[in-house]
Amino acid sequence: MKKADLIYADGEHCADMLYATGFRAPDAFIYFKTSSETGMVMSALEHDRAVKEAKPGINIYSNKEFCDRQDAKAVDLVSGLAEKKKIKVFRVPGEFPLKLADELRSRGFTVTPEKQRFFPEREFKNSQEVDNITAALRITENGMRRAHRILETAELNQTGQLVWNAKILTSELLRAEINIELIRGGAMPDATIVACGTQGADPHNTGTGPLESGKPIIIDIFPKVTATGYWGDLTRTFVKGTAPDQVKRAYEAVYAARESAKPLIKAGAVPVEIHNAAKSILDKHGFETGRKNNCNYGFFHGLGHGVGLEIHEAPRLSPASKTPLRGGEVVTVEPGVYYQEWGGIRLEDMVYVEENGCRCLTEIENILEVK
Amino acid sequence: MKKADLIYADGEHCADMLYATGFRAPDAFIYFKTSSETGMVMSALEHDRAVKEAKPGINIYSNKEFCDRQDAKAVDLVSGLAEKKKIKVFRVPGEFPLKLADELRSRGFTVTPEKQRFFPEREFKNSQEVDNITAALRITENGMRRAHRILETAELNQTGQLVWNAKILTSELLRAEINIELIRGGAMPDATIVACGTQGADPHNTGTGPLESGKPIIIDIFPKVTATGYWGDLTRTFVKGTAPDQVKRAYEAVYAARESAKPLIKAGAVPVEIHNAAKSILDKHGFETGRKNNCNYGFFHGLGHGVGLEIHEAPRLSPASKTPLRGGEVVTVEPGVYYQEWGGIRLEDMVYVEENGCRCLTEIENILEVK
Repeated sequence: MKKADLIYADGEHCADMLYATGFRAPDAFIYFKTSSETGMVMSALEHDRAVKEAKPGINIYSNKEFCDRQDAKAVDLVSGLAEKKKIKVFRVPGEFPLKLADELRSRGFTVTPEKQRFFPEREFKNSQEVDNITAALRITENGMRRAHRILETAELNQTGQLVWNAKILTSELLRAEINIELIRGGAMPDATIVACGTQGADPHNTGTGPLESGKPIIIDIFPKVTATGYWGDLTRTFVKGTAPDQVKRAYEAVYAARESAKPLIKAGAVPVEIHNAAKSILDKHGFETGRKNNCNYGFFHGLGHGVGLEIHEAPRLSPASKTPLRGGEVVTVEPGVYYQEWGGIRLEDMVYVEENGCRCLTEIENILEVK
Repeated sequence: MKKADLIYADGEHCADMLYATGFRAPDAFIYFKTSSETGMVMSALEHDRAVKEAKPGINIYSNKEFCDRQDAKAVDLVSGLAEKKKIKVFRVPGEFPLKLADELRSRGFTVTPEKQRFFPEREFKNSQEVDNITAALRITENGMRRAHRILETAELNQTGQLVWNAKILTSELLRAEINIELIRGGAMPDATIVACGTQGADPHNTGTGPLESGKPIIIDIFPKVTATGYWGDLTRTFVKGTAPDQVKRAYEAVYAARESAKPLIKAGAVPVEIHNAAKSILDKHGFETGRKNNCNYGFFHGLGHGVGLEIHEAPRLSPASKTPLRGGEVVTVEPGVYYQEWGGIRLEDMVYVEENGCRCLTEIENILEVK
């Protein structure tokens, strides 16, 4: 019984496929790997480009070679492939599409979803990958600098709204300017967050409408570099003008939590313990976590997450993560506090986990008040 | 035995989830629908935002309500949900993750992947959806106009390369300028194609390096409007300066194929027949399809595809599509020819399928030579 790894996905949005093949296509295709061969099975539309662009060492087949019907479906192609290669058992990612798996099983194949990560090595970055992530972060920082400069240049109108280039400065406008900077740098923005005041009380509210002085503005930027597929991730929080005392204290607490957590990050450290250490710093500063009026407040997300070919990937620095770090991971460190009454503060850096500590990849400074 | 629809995905990249909930989140969450209730099950991070942003009429639950363990996995949450709601049978999308399905089955649940589309109504657009797609197309056209204007403004250097703003005009630079125009318009670019000369012989080559005069430049723009999630799709092909005779003839053939296909698109028409009609026009003009030197040439992709919350969705106007159109679909019409020797031509419009014909949604003109 010959076994094979099998992925059926596109390489544009499926990081495992991109990792395996280096090839991006908007529609799903087949990747397989047996003990003797690695291959891709491509439509006429993508075949010739795959020959040129896929990772070296992968054999590129046409759909037609495994099923020559015009209306061949994925199950027909995989069955044809399996017959020619005498494969009976497929190991697939946990996210493998159920319908295709059921169809293959009903044709007599064994299809076993991987319980863990399909490519566990993706969690541990080699030096090229760290370089790619660092390059992504440099572009991300340029986006943040652009935002900072615009906030500096902006003036206040009589109602405390920000005016820039003779226009009311909105979340939408500032987000567009940040995203343009990312694109000029060769990266593709995702859902860039510019959330002012109480909007920032929801960590993933992307923000809308006029920006105001005296209120925290959370800016969270996470683009993917087009050429490599690797992501950067960065959050800063600004106040235009003078920050209220409470916001200043929250900023100091979040900064302290982040900086206290970093020295704990090293090979052997247990993520939940790092998370809890950051949380206890916030508690000590008086920024506790809980629930009232049917809303969460305080620090109610994980301290960080892995970043690579996905913006959120293993490992998580969260209350549920009990597997010790091994070294080689790239993770965010991003404590935050959120209150429906006035908004939120989040400060996010990225670090590379090493034997005896971690190396901070983020270079941009932390500034609260923009005058 | 109570039944429920179940989706487990994020709403950022899963169009079914976005359609069902109107809610975007970077991480997967649970959507369910029984005969009496529609609900979402959210992490603490996203719960309060979901209350504000999800479609009205959906009950928003916390993960904790169905499993209060910190390390609760998707299977624990779905099992807890099923127990409280007395659900035994789940209908899920064909793309439902296999690992979760197997885990649910091993706990005694029936999990049945939908053989067809999970929301077949997504194929047939209501007037709001047509408006959303048309709005996306207007932004897309602005991106194309920006490209056209830059090609007009560009001058030639001694080697026939294009120079713009004192820089060599590359695929990368023109793509960035197009993408910036999209972002200013409120849409997010995807893999915008600017492929010059022989690069254009691969329909999905995104293009790289200096643009040259006298060679076809395929520009394919397909952004997603951030506010609505709907896509636009548009391709034009330009030549800076004078087009070689062969390129002119290919352009005329592709244009004729597209315009001849449009009147065939209506309720009751069979996609494969429309595709074949376009192909026969190309054949008659001497642009035949085949394979030589291990490469495809001619017209080797489908004539078009549905567009909505996904850039590629049902129906396909392809050789494999035998189900008649019903009216209400929005599809691209994009014949193209591709030759390794000199490159490719593709001209893409979008149409709305009606009872007795189709309405072209694309307004921008078709121009080959840019002087």
